[in-house]
Amino acid sequence: MRVRNRKGASELLEKNPQYVILNPEACKGKWSEIFGNNHSIHIEVGSGKGNFVTGMAAQNPDINYIGIDIQLSVLSYALDKVLAAGLPNVKLLRVDGSSLANYFENGEIDQLYLNFSDPWPKKRHEKRRLTYKTFLDTFKEILPEGGEIHFKTDNRGLFEYSLASFSKYGMTLQEVWLDLHASDYEGNVMTEYEEKFSKKGQVIYRVEAKFNKK
Amino acid sequence: MRVRNRKGASELLEKNPQYVILNPEACKGKWSEIFGNNHSIHIEVGSGKGNFVTGMAAQNPDINYIGIDIQLSVLSYALDKVLAAGLPNVKLLRVDGSSLANYFENGEIDQLYLNFSDPWPKKRHEKRRLTYKTFLDTFKEILPEGGEIHFKTDNRGLFEYSLASFSKYGMTLQEVWLDLHASDYEGNVMTEYEEKFSKKGQVIYRVEAKFNKK
Repeated sequence: MRVRNRKGASELLEKNPQYVILNPEACKGKWSEIFGNNHSIHIEVGSGKGNFVTGMAAQNPDINYIGIDIQLSVLSYALDKVLAAGLPNVKLLRVDGSSLANYFENGEIDQLYLNFSDPWPKKRHEKRRLTYKTFLDTFKEILPEGGEIHFKTDNRGLFEYSLASFSKYGMTLQEVWLDLHASDYEGNVMTEYEEKFSKKGQVIYRVEAKFNKK
Repeated sequence: MRVRNRKGASELLEKNPQYVILNPEACKGKWSEIFGNNHSIHIEVGSGKGNFVTGMAAQNPDINYIGIDIQLSVLSYALDKVLAAGLPNVKLLRVDGSSLANYFENGEIDQLYLNFSDPWPKKRHEKRRLTYKTFLDTFKEILPEGGEIHFKTDNRGLFEYSLASFSKYGMTLQEVWLDLHASDYEGNVMTEYEEKFSKKGQVIYRVEAKFNKK
Protein backbone atom coordinates (compact mmCIF):
# COMPACT_ATOMS: atom_id res chain seq x y z
CA MET A 1 0.00 0.00 0.00
CA ARG A 2 1.42 3.36 -1.09
CA VAL A 3 0.29 6.53 0.66
CA ARG A 4 1.39 10.14 0.60
CA ASN A 5 4.08 11.16 3.07
CA ARG A 6 2.58 12.24 6.36
CA LYS A 7 4.13 15.19 8.10
CA GLY A 8 5.33 14.36 11.58
CA ALA A 9 5.02 10.59 11.04
CA SER A 10 8.56 9.94 12.18
CA GLU A 11 8.13 11.96 15.39
CA LEU A 12 4.84 10.22 16.16
CA LEU A 13 6.49 6.81 15.91
CA GLU A 14 9.41 7.89 18.09
CA LYS A 15 7.12 9.25 20.74
CA ASN A 16 5.43 5.89 21.29
CA PRO A 17 8.09 3.34 22.10
CA GLN A 18 5.60 1.23 24.05
CA TYR A 19 4.03 0.36 20.67
CA VAL A 20 6.71 1.09 18.10
CA ILE A 21 9.86 -0.94 18.50
CA LEU A 22 12.79 1.21 17.45
CA ASN A 23 15.63 -1.22 18.18
CA PRO A 24 14.31 -4.51 16.82
CA GLU A 25 17.75 -6.17 16.57
CA ALA A 26 17.96 -6.03 20.38
CA CYS A 27 14.60 -7.84 20.66
CA LYS A 28 15.59 -11.06 18.93
CA GLY A 29 14.68 -13.96 21.21
CA LYS A 30 13.11 -11.59 23.76
CA TRP A 31 9.66 -10.92 22.37
CA SER A 32 7.81 -12.67 25.18
CA GLU A 33 9.71 -10.47 27.59
CA ILE A 34 8.73 -7.38 25.62
CA PHE A 35 5.04 -8.35 25.61
CA GLY A 36 5.31 -9.34 29.25
CA ASN A 37 3.65 -12.76 28.77
CA ASN A 38 4.09 -16.11 27.05
CA HIS A 39 1.20 -15.82 24.63
CA SER A 40 1.55 -16.85 21.00
CA ILE A 41 3.02 -14.22 18.73
CA HIS A 42 1.53 -13.61 15.28
CA ILE A 43 2.96 -11.21 12.75
CA GLU A 44 1.54 -9.48 9.73
CA VAL A 45 4.12 -8.70 7.09
CA GLY A 46 2.97 -5.59 5.27
CA SER A 47 0.50 -4.40 7.89
CA GLY A 48 -0.39 -1.19 6.04
CA LYS A 49 -2.71 1.13 7.92
CA GLY A 50 -3.25 -1.46 10.63
CA ASN A 51 -6.94 -2.38 10.34
CA PHE A 52 -6.17 -6.08 10.31
CA VAL A 53 -3.57 -6.23 13.05
CA THR A 54 -5.56 -4.02 15.43
CA GLY A 55 -8.83 -5.80 14.61
CA MET A 56 -7.25 -9.19 15.25
CA ALA A 57 -5.65 -7.95 18.46
CA ALA A 58 -9.00 -6.69 19.74
CA GLN A 59 -10.66 -9.98 18.78
CA ASN A 60 -7.95 -12.13 20.36
CA PRO A 61 -6.55 -10.48 23.49
CA ASP A 62 -4.58 -13.63 24.36
CA ILE A 63 -2.49 -13.46 21.23
CA ASN A 64 0.30 -10.97 20.70
CA TYR A 65 0.47 -9.25 17.32
CA ILE A 66 3.34 -7.56 15.55
CA GLY A 67 2.59 -5.43 12.52
CA ILE A 68 5.47 -4.93 10.13
CA ASP A 69 5.71 -2.35 7.41
CA ILE A 70 8.60 -0.59 5.78
CA GLN A 71 6.70 2.63 5.07
CA LEU A 72 6.89 5.33 7.67
CA SER A 73 3.61 7.11 6.91
CA VAL A 74 1.62 3.89 6.64
CA LEU A 75 2.99 2.68 9.95
CA SER A 76 2.04 5.97 11.60
CA TYR A 77 -1.61 5.45 10.58
CA ALA A 78 -1.49 1.99 12.10
CA LEU A 79 -0.12 3.58 15.27
CA ASP A 80 -3.12 5.95 15.37
CA LYS A 81 -5.38 2.91 15.55
CA VAL A 82 -3.32 1.17 18.21
CA LEU A 83 -3.35 4.33 20.31
CA ALA A 84 -7.07 4.86 19.85
CA ALA A 85 -7.85 1.29 20.87
CA GLY A 86 -5.16 1.12 23.55
CA LEU A 87 -4.13 -2.40 22.64
CA PRO A 88 -1.41 -3.83 24.90
CA ASN A 89 -0.99 -6.88 22.63
CA VAL A 90 0.22 -5.01 19.53
CA LYS A 91 3.69 -3.87 18.57
CA LEU A 92 4.69 -2.17 15.33
CA LEU A 93 7.97 -2.55 13.53
CA ARG A 94 9.39 -0.57 10.66
CA VAL A 95 11.53 -3.18 8.93
CA ASP A 96 11.73 -5.06 5.66
CA GLY A 97 10.11 -8.47 5.19
CA SER A 98 13.34 -10.00 3.93
CA SER A 99 15.26 -9.16 7.09
CA LEU A 100 12.99 -10.76 9.68
CA ALA A 101 15.57 -13.32 10.76
CA ASN A 102 17.54 -10.39 12.24
CA TYR A 103 14.73 -9.63 14.67
CA PHE A 104 13.19 -12.99 15.48
CA GLU A 105 14.71 -16.18 16.80
CA ASN A 106 14.16 -19.47 15.01
CA GLY A 107 10.57 -20.47 15.82
CA GLU A 108 9.84 -17.35 17.87
CA ILE A 109 6.78 -16.44 15.75
CA ASP A 110 3.75 -18.74 15.87
CA GLN A 111 1.87 -17.58 12.80
CA LEU A 112 2.37 -15.22 9.90
CA TYR A 113 -0.16 -13.19 7.92
CA LEU A 114 0.20 -11.75 4.45
CA ASN A 115 -2.67 -9.54 3.34
CA PHE A 116 -3.01 -7.93 -0.08
CA SER A 117 0.71 -7.96 -0.65
CA ASP A 118 2.08 -6.07 -3.62
CA PRO A 119 1.44 -8.35 -6.62
CA TRP A 120 4.53 -7.33 -8.61
CA PRO A 121 2.84 -8.64 -11.75
CA LYS A 122 5.84 -8.49 -14.06
CA LYS A 123 7.71 -11.78 -14.34
CA ARG A 124 11.04 -9.98 -13.86
CA HIS A 125 9.83 -8.76 -10.46
CA GLU A 126 8.89 -12.26 -9.25
CA LYS A 127 11.63 -12.16 -6.60
CA ARG A 128 9.94 -9.20 -4.92
CA ARG A 129 6.68 -11.03 -4.26
CA LEU A 130 6.36 -11.93 -0.59
CA THR A 131 5.43 -15.48 -1.55
CA TYR A 132 8.63 -16.01 -3.54
CA LYS A 133 10.86 -18.77 -2.21
CA THR A 134 13.52 -16.54 -0.64
CA PHE A 135 10.85 -14.88 1.51
CA LEU A 136 9.47 -18.32 2.35
CA ASP A 137 12.99 -19.28 3.53
CA THR A 138 12.88 -16.37 5.97
CA PHE A 139 9.34 -17.05 7.12
CA LYS A 140 10.10 -20.73 7.66
CA GLU A 141 13.08 -19.81 9.81
CA ILE A 142 11.15 -17.64 12.27
CA LEU A 143 8.13 -19.99 12.45
CA PRO A 144 8.07 -23.31 14.31
CA GLU A 145 7.86 -26.67 12.55
CA GLY A 146 4.34 -26.87 11.15
CA GLY A 147 4.00 -23.07 11.27
CA GLU A 148 1.45 -21.48 8.97
CA ILE A 149 1.10 -18.57 6.60
CA HIS A 150 -2.41 -17.18 6.21
CA PHE A 151 -2.61 -15.21 3.01
CA LYS A 152 -5.40 -13.06 1.55
CA THR A 153 -5.49 -11.16 -1.70
CA ASP A 154 -7.85 -9.99 -4.40
CA ASN A 155 -5.14 -10.30 -7.02
CA ARG A 156 -5.80 -13.34 -9.18
CA GLY A 157 -2.32 -13.51 -10.67
CA LEU A 158 -0.63 -13.25 -7.30
CA PHE A 159 -2.89 -15.89 -5.80
CA GLU A 160 -2.33 -18.33 -8.67
CA TYR A 161 1.40 -17.75 -8.35
CA SER A 162 1.39 -18.10 -4.57
CA LEU A 163 -0.53 -21.38 -4.46
CA ALA A 164 2.03 -22.94 -6.79
CA SER A 165 4.93 -21.25 -4.98
CA PHE A 166 3.82 -22.57 -1.55
CA SER A 167 3.28 -26.03 -3.00
CA LYS A 168 6.61 -26.19 -4.85
CA TYR A 169 8.31 -25.07 -1.65
CA GLY A 170 6.92 -28.18 0.02
CA MET A 171 4.23 -26.42 2.03
CA THR A 172 0.82 -28.01 2.45
CA LEU A 173 -2.29 -26.06 1.51
CA GLN A 174 -4.53 -26.73 4.49
CA GLU A 175 -7.54 -24.86 3.19
CA VAL A 176 -8.32 -22.60 0.24
CA TRP A 177 -11.08 -20.01 -0.22
CA LEU A 178 -11.80 -18.73 -3.72
CA ASP A 179 -14.48 -16.29 -2.59
CA LEU A 180 -13.92 -15.61 1.09
CA HIS A 181 -16.84 -13.25 1.53
CA ALA A 182 -19.27 -15.75 0.01
CA SER A 183 -18.02 -18.52 2.29
CA ASP A 184 -18.97 -19.44 5.83
CA TYR A 185 -15.57 -18.45 7.18
CA GLU A 186 -16.06 -16.72 10.53
CA GLY A 187 -14.06 -14.04 12.26
CA ASN A 188 -12.65 -12.45 9.12
CA VAL A 189 -11.05 -9.10 9.89
CA MET A 190 -10.96 -6.94 6.81
CA THR A 191 -8.04 -4.77 5.81
CA GLU A 192 -8.67 -1.24 4.49
CA TYR A 193 -7.93 -2.48 1.01
CA GLU A 194 -10.24 -5.48 1.38
CA GLU A 195 -13.16 -3.27 2.45
CA LYS A 196 -12.70 -1.00 -0.50
CA PHE A 197 -12.23 -3.60 -3.21
CA SER A 198 -14.72 -6.17 -2.03
CA LYS A 199 -17.35 -3.41 -2.15
CA LYS A 200 -16.47 -3.02 -5.81
CA GLY A 201 -17.27 -6.68 -6.36
CA GLN A 202 -13.72 -8.05 -6.27
CA VAL A 203 -13.48 -11.66 -5.12
CA ILE A 204 -11.22 -12.17 -2.11
CA TYR A 205 -8.97 -15.24 -2.13
CA ARG A 206 -7.52 -16.83 1.00
CA VAL A 207 -5.26 -19.75 1.81
CA GLU A 208 -3.78 -21.32 4.93
CA ALA A 209 -0.46 -22.93 4.04
CA LYS A 210 1.68 -24.96 6.41
CA PHE A 211 5.43 -25.46 6.48
CA ASN A 212 6.44 -29.04 6.96
CA LYS A 213 9.74 -30.39 8.28
CA LYS A 214 12.33 -27.80 9.29
CA MET B 1 -22.85 -35.63 -16.43
CA ARG B 2 -26.27 -37.24 -16.37
CA VAL B 3 -28.15 -37.78 -19.59
CA ARG B 4 -31.32 -39.62 -20.55
CA ASN B 5 -30.96 -43.25 -21.54
CA ARG B 6 -30.29 -43.60 -25.23
CA LYS B 7 -31.99 -46.40 -27.05
CA GLY B 8 -29.54 -48.74 -28.74
CA ALA B 9 -26.54 -47.30 -26.87
CA SER B 10 -25.40 -50.73 -25.74
CA GLU B 11 -25.57 -52.21 -29.25
CA LEU B 12 -23.71 -49.23 -30.71
CA LEU B 13 -20.85 -49.73 -28.26
CA GLU B 14 -20.69 -53.46 -28.94
CA LYS B 15 -20.60 -52.94 -32.67
CA ASN B 16 -17.42 -50.86 -32.48
CA PRO B 17 -14.78 -52.91 -30.70
CA GLN B 18 -11.99 -51.03 -32.51
CA TYR B 19 -12.92 -48.03 -30.35
CA VAL B 20 -14.80 -49.45 -27.40
CA ILE B 21 -12.82 -51.88 -25.28
CA LEU B 22 -15.19 -54.52 -23.97
CA ASN B 23 -12.68 -56.70 -22.11
CA PRO B 24 -10.52 -54.15 -20.30
CA GLU B 25 -9.15 -56.64 -17.73
CA ALA B 26 -7.41 -58.45 -20.57
CA CYS B 27 -5.73 -55.21 -21.67
CA LYS B 28 -3.76 -54.54 -18.50
CA GLY B 29 -0.12 -54.00 -19.45
CA LYS B 30 -0.93 -54.30 -23.16
CA TRP B 31 -2.23 -50.88 -24.08
CA SER B 32 0.67 -50.01 -26.36
CA GLU B 33 -0.05 -53.24 -28.24
CA ILE B 34 -3.72 -52.29 -28.52
CA PHE B 35 -2.90 -48.85 -29.89
CA GLY B 36 -0.22 -50.38 -32.11
CA ASN B 37 2.49 -47.90 -31.11
CA ASN B 38 4.56 -46.71 -28.16
CA HIS B 39 3.10 -43.24 -27.86
CA SER B 40 2.19 -41.75 -24.49
CA ILE B 41 -1.20 -42.74 -23.15
CA HIS B 42 -3.44 -40.11 -21.54
CA ILE B 43 -6.77 -40.88 -19.92
CA GLU B 44 -9.76 -38.78 -19.06
CA VAL B 45 -11.71 -40.11 -16.11
CA GLY B 46 -15.32 -39.10 -16.62
CA SER B 47 -15.09 -38.35 -20.33
CA GLY B 48 -18.80 -37.57 -20.72
CA LYS B 49 -19.92 -36.93 -24.27
CA GLY B 50 -16.34 -36.96 -25.49
CA ASN B 51 -15.70 -33.41 -26.70
CA PHE B 52 -12.49 -33.15 -24.73
CA VAL B 53 -10.99 -36.55 -25.47
CA THR B 54 -11.76 -36.35 -29.19
CA GLY B 55 -10.63 -32.73 -29.42
CA MET B 56 -7.36 -33.54 -27.67
CA ALA B 57 -6.85 -36.61 -29.87
CA ALA B 58 -7.34 -34.54 -33.03
CA GLN B 59 -4.95 -31.86 -31.72
CA ASN B 60 -2.29 -34.38 -30.66
CA PRO B 61 -2.17 -37.33 -33.07
CA ASP B 62 1.02 -38.63 -31.43
CA ILE B 63 -0.66 -39.17 -28.09
CA ASN B 64 -3.07 -42.00 -27.36
CA TYR B 65 -6.23 -41.13 -25.45
CA ILE B 66 -8.55 -43.29 -23.42
CA GLY B 67 -11.91 -41.89 -22.40
CA ILE B 68 -13.49 -43.50 -19.37
CA ASP B 69 -17.08 -43.20 -18.28
CA ILE B 70 -19.39 -45.47 -16.37
CA GLN B 71 -22.56 -44.31 -18.12
CA LEU B 72 -23.64 -46.21 -21.18
CA SER B 73 -25.57 -43.47 -22.96
CA VAL B 74 -22.93 -40.84 -22.35
CA LEU B 75 -20.22 -43.14 -23.69
CA SER B 76 -22.29 -43.82 -26.80
CA TYR B 77 -22.37 -40.08 -27.60
CA ALA B 78 -18.60 -39.98 -27.22
CA LEU B 79 -18.42 -42.90 -29.63
CA ASP B 80 -20.45 -40.91 -32.19
CA LYS B 81 -17.73 -38.27 -32.15
CA VAL B 82 -14.89 -40.77 -32.41
CA LEU B 83 -16.61 -42.42 -35.38
CA ALA B 84 -17.32 -39.11 -37.08
CA ALA B 85 -13.73 -37.97 -36.71
CA GLY B 86 -12.22 -41.42 -37.36
CA LEU B 87 -9.60 -41.07 -34.67
CA PRO B 88 -7.21 -44.04 -34.44
CA ASN B 89 -5.69 -42.69 -31.21
CA VAL B 90 -8.83 -42.90 -29.07
CA LYS B 91 -10.28 -45.80 -27.11
CA LEU B 92 -13.33 -45.72 -24.89
CA LEU B 93 -13.88 -47.72 -21.74
CA ARG B 94 -16.99 -48.23 -19.70
CA VAL B 95 -15.57 -48.71 -16.23
CA ASP B 96 -15.54 -47.03 -12.86
CA GLY B 97 -12.81 -44.58 -11.83
CA SER B 98 -12.08 -46.47 -8.63
CA SER B 99 -11.24 -49.70 -10.45
CA LEU B 100 -8.59 -48.43 -12.85
CA ALA B 101 -5.81 -50.51 -11.33
CA ASN B 102 -7.62 -53.57 -12.73
CA TYR B 103 -7.12 -52.33 -16.28
CA PHE B 104 -3.80 -50.51 -16.22
CA GLU B 105 -0.36 -51.62 -15.12
CA ASN B 106 1.62 -49.56 -12.64
CA GLY B 107 2.87 -46.52 -14.58
CA GLU B 108 1.16 -47.51 -17.84
CA ILE B 109 -0.71 -44.18 -18.11
CA ASP B 110 1.33 -41.04 -18.70
CA GLN B 111 -1.21 -38.38 -17.80
CA LEU B 112 -4.67 -38.16 -16.35
CA TYR B 113 -7.44 -35.62 -16.94
CA LEU B 114 -10.39 -34.82 -14.74
CA ASN B 115 -12.89 -32.39 -16.24
CA PHE B 116 -15.97 -31.05 -14.50
CA SER B 117 -16.19 -34.03 -12.22
CA ASP B 118 -19.28 -34.45 -10.09
CA PRO B 119 -18.77 -32.04 -7.15
CA TRP B 120 -20.63 -34.13 -4.55
CA PRO B 121 -21.03 -30.99 -2.44
CA LYS B 122 -22.26 -32.67 0.74
CA LYS B 123 -19.52 -33.35 3.25
CA ARG B 124 -20.82 -36.89 3.77
CA HIS B 125 -20.23 -37.59 0.06
CA GLU B 126 -16.61 -36.44 0.16
CA LYS B 127 -15.37 -39.97 -0.56
CA ARG B 128 -17.14 -39.95 -3.91
CA ARG B 129 -15.24 -36.94 -5.23
CA LEU B 130 -12.67 -38.00 -7.82
CA THR B 131 -10.05 -35.90 -6.04
CA TYR B 132 -10.54 -37.73 -2.71
CA LYS B 133 -7.47 -39.54 -1.46
CA THR B 134 -8.62 -43.08 -2.29
CA PHE B 135 -9.03 -42.06 -5.95
CA LEU B 136 -5.63 -40.38 -5.80
CA ASP B 137 -4.19 -43.70 -4.56
CA THR B 138 -5.52 -45.38 -7.70
CA PHE B 139 -4.40 -42.60 -10.03
CA LYS B 140 -0.93 -42.59 -8.51
CA GLU B 141 -0.64 -46.32 -9.07
CA ILE B 142 -1.34 -46.22 -12.79
CA LEU B 143 0.76 -43.09 -13.42
CA PRO B 144 4.58 -43.01 -13.46
CA GLU B 145 6.63 -41.24 -10.80
CA GLY B 146 6.09 -37.52 -11.38
CA GLY B 147 2.84 -38.23 -13.26
CA GLU B 148 0.32 -35.41 -13.44
CA ILE B 149 -3.39 -34.83 -13.04
CA HIS B 150 -4.81 -31.95 -15.05
CA PHE B 151 -8.09 -30.90 -13.56
CA LYS B 152 -10.70 -28.38 -14.73
CA THR B 153 -13.96 -27.40 -13.10
CA ASP B 154 -16.31 -24.48 -12.72
CA ASN B 155 -17.32 -25.65 -9.24
CA ARG B 156 -15.73 -23.41 -6.64
CA GLY B 157 -16.30 -25.76 -3.73
CA LEU B 158 -14.85 -28.74 -5.56
CA PHE B 159 -11.83 -26.75 -6.70
CA GLU B 160 -11.12 -25.42 -3.21
CA TYR B 161 -11.43 -28.94 -1.87
CA SER B 162 -9.28 -30.45 -4.59
CA LEU B 163 -6.37 -28.01 -4.23
CA ALA B 164 -6.15 -28.87 -0.54
CA SER B 165 -6.70 -32.58 -1.20
CA PHE B 166 -3.90 -32.74 -3.79
CA SER B 167 -1.61 -30.79 -1.50
CA LYS B 168 -2.34 -32.88 1.60
CA TYR B 169 -1.73 -36.00 -0.46
CA GLY B 170 1.79 -34.73 -1.10
CA MET B 171 1.23 -33.67 -4.69
CA THR B 172 2.80 -30.49 -6.01
CA LEU B 173 0.61 -27.85 -7.65
CA GLN B 174 2.65 -27.01 -10.73
CA GLU B 175 0.36 -24.29 -12.01
CA VAL B 176 -3.06 -22.93 -11.10
CA TRP B 177 -5.57 -20.98 -13.20
CA LEU B 178 -8.41 -19.17 -11.45
CA ASP B 179 -10.00 -17.92 -14.67
CA LEU B 180 -8.78 -20.14 -17.46
CA HIS B 181 -10.62 -18.38 -20.25
CA ALA B 182 -9.22 -14.99 -19.23
CA SER B 183 -5.68 -16.36 -19.16
CA ASP B 184 -3.15 -16.80 -21.94
CA TYR B 185 -3.32 -20.59 -21.71
CA GLU B 186 -3.17 -22.01 -25.23
CA GLY B 187 -4.66 -25.15 -26.70
CA ASN B 188 -7.56 -25.45 -24.30
CA VAL B 189 -10.09 -27.99 -25.54
CA MET B 190 -13.50 -27.29 -24.06
CA THR B 191 -15.85 -29.94 -22.79
CA GLU B 192 -19.58 -29.71 -23.60
CA TYR B 193 -20.20 -28.57 -20.06
CA GLU B 194 -17.42 -25.98 -20.20
CA GLU B 195 -18.83 -24.43 -23.38
CA LYS B 196 -22.25 -24.13 -21.88
CA PHE B 197 -21.33 -22.78 -18.48
CA SER B 198 -18.54 -20.45 -19.50
CA LYS B 199 -21.02 -18.80 -21.88
CA LYS B 200 -23.15 -18.11 -18.83
CA GLY B 201 -20.23 -16.27 -17.25
CA GLN B 202 -18.97 -19.06 -14.99
CA VAL B 203 -15.28 -18.86 -14.22
CA ILE B 204 -13.32 -21.99 -15.18
CA TYR B 205 -10.64 -23.17 -12.75
CA ARG B 206 -7.70 -25.37 -13.75
CA VAL B 207 -4.75 -26.96 -12.01
CA GLU B 208 -1.85 -29.19 -12.98
CA ALA B 209 -0.86 -31.30 -10.00
CA LYS B 210 2.08 -33.68 -9.90
CA PHE B 211 2.58 -36.85 -7.90
CA ASN B 212 5.95 -37.04 -6.24
CA LYS B 213 7.81 -40.14 -5.07
CA LYS B 214 6.09 -43.48 -5.63
